[in-house]
Amino acid sequence: MSTNILRTADGWWVVRDSRAVRIETKAVTTAELLADLAAVRETVREAAASDDTGTAVADLVALSPVTTPCRVVAQMVNYRSHARDSGFTGDIPPTFFRKASGSVSGPGEAIVRPSHVKFLDYEIELGLVMGAPLPVGTVVTEQDLPSYVAGLVLTNDVSARDVQLTKTQFYESKSYPTFTPTGPYLCLLEPEEFAHLLDLRLRLSVNGDLRQDRTLADMIVRPAQALTLLARFQTLDPGDLLLTGTPGGTALKAPPKAVEKVGALLPPAVKWKAFFRSQARNPHYLHDGDLITATIATPDGRIDLGEQRTPVTDAP
Amino acid sequence: MSTNILRTADGWWVVRDSRAVRIETKAVTTAELLADLAAVRETVREAAASDDTGTAVADLVALSPVTTPCRVVAQMVNYRSHARDSGFTGDIPPTFFRKASGSVSGPGEAIVRPSHVKFLDYEIELGLVMGAPLPVGTVVTEQDLPSYVAGLVLTNDVSARDVQLTKTQFYESKSYPTFTPTGPYLCLLEPEEFAHLLDLRLRLSVNGDLRQDRTLADMIVRPAQALTLLARFQTLDPGDLLLTGTPGGTALKAPPKAVEKVGALLPPAVKWKAFFRSQARNPHYLHDGDLITATIATPDGRIDLGEQRTPVTDAP
Repeated sequence: MSTNILRTADGWWVVRDSRAVRIETKAVTTAELLADLAAVRETVREAAASDDTGTAVADLVALSPVTTPCRVVAQMVNYRSHARDSGFTGDIPPTFFRKASGSVSGPGEAIVRPSHVKFLDYEIELGLVMGAPLPVGTVVTEQDLPSYVAGLVLTNDVSARDVQLTKTQFYESKSYPTFTPTGPYLCLLEPEEFAHLLDLRLRLSVNGDLRQDRTLADMIVRPAQALTLLARFQTLDPGDLLLTGTPGGTALKAPPKAVEKVGALLPPAVKWKAFFRSQARNPHYLHDGDLITATIATPDGRIDLGEQRTPVTDAP
Repeated sequence: MSTNILRTADGWWVVRDSRAVRIETKAVTTAELLADLAAVRETVREAAASDDTGTAVADLVALSPVTTPCRVVAQMVNYRSHARDSGFTGDIPPTFFRKASGSVSGPGEAIVRPSHVKFLDYEIELGLVMGAPLPVGTVVTEQDLPSYVAGLVLTNDVSARDVQLTKTQFYESKSYPTFTPTGPYLCLLEPEEFAHLLDLRLRLSVNGDLRQDRTLADMIVRPAQALTLLARFQTLDPGDLLLTGTPGGTALKAPPKAVEKVGALLPPAVKWKAFFRSQARNPHYLHDGDLITATIATPDGRIDLGEQRTPVTDAP
């Protein structure tokens, strides 16, 4: 059975139903915790022995179970539904970009909109947390995946669309502090549970309005292949995080093809001005006071990464 | 006077003319060396005391003086001459991207072309090595710059153009191992020497053919402003590296505007196929057996980052 790990300001916990039992470990970083799995297993046994051991989860303030600094790498356009939303047609070359790990925040922390950002968007994503080094040149098969990936985590790849599209490189637009809410749980999988990844369902709502709702069956480049492609150039280490792309339903929708082709003939500044003028009428971007709720789980609850509840606020 | 630091497999050295004197320090990482400047200063005094102390620089094998892992951030299109080469017109929004620090290699190590890369290009760049933390929100003035930047280093932002342009995100194309030759020297500046940055001249030749030759006067966003813009979203720490863009003269030249506008109407795969068909006739891309030589220095030699000599080889 998978094991849900929660992190608080004073340590690490194993979660079982509504209770959390403290892990006896000196681990500070996620990598250190993953190197002390004996302590995790001991806590799992302890939690299983009694229904009223530990602390109520509701009384704990969860931090991101992925500690920083770490590498945060993300896959561009990796769900068919998001590719359609984004106006991509034909083959999309598998593409990675980086997010600054300073953007990682807790699963209940507010997303802070910088004052110069006008078009703030959400992207629910499944995060893979590495459990072993991935040297350059590694080929990862579906069978090997459990040797490299320790577990899963719910993430939101928050994006400043006006920064992203005008700068073309995604790095800044997705790297402001609080732009990667992560958690609540680091879900450590048993090797046989990796067979159920495609059943995972990603759901994200804004103020109760369901915006994103897809399973991993819609994914284009799946985890084992993604790690193989990433290892063409990139080393990863335990505790590093790979975001695997978002399904359709973001606020951003690409303009119709005909409009885009006219836009391509305009100087970039004119094109973007026109595009964002049209986006100003789109009510789906995030605003001060919004509440985002998000879950990732299999229908049978065998894998359940918990619920993220992040308010949106304007920078002071 | 600036101090040139060299790193070898067994330690750190102060270079004075053609001699190198070993620094007595336990530092392993660049950040650790920058925290032990007393040891550096002691070695500078020792080297100044005698002309024949130490070891001949020619007998040492220089490694990158920037150790990894560290953050490697780079500025996109940051010289007017390169903007023209790249077909940019009008204002270019200042843009950053990441390189994997696993791409950093020594100043004499070969650049290895992965077998799937057909259009390998060079980009000489001035690297800033951080000497102090740069928290998010920091405003760096010209006067403050010496408080944040410890020194300078010569880098080559090697780029797989076919990967870069088809994927749109620059990350993979510039992150393969050996794609950031760095060094030979970490040049530690005295505060008053920052006033001479704009005199620095960047020169890069391939097989003796001078391809890039500009001073920093051609730079668009200068170091203090670049750090201020980066600190809108990104934390840096001592030992981290910011590449400040490349001047004109790369192998890649953008197609004429008219051709580009027609290209924008084509599906991406067709557009890139046509573009790279035309590039196949461009003799300036790098090939197995080429030798790149590069220098960055002021005309009076007051700041001189040494010479990089990197052969190009095909992956075995």
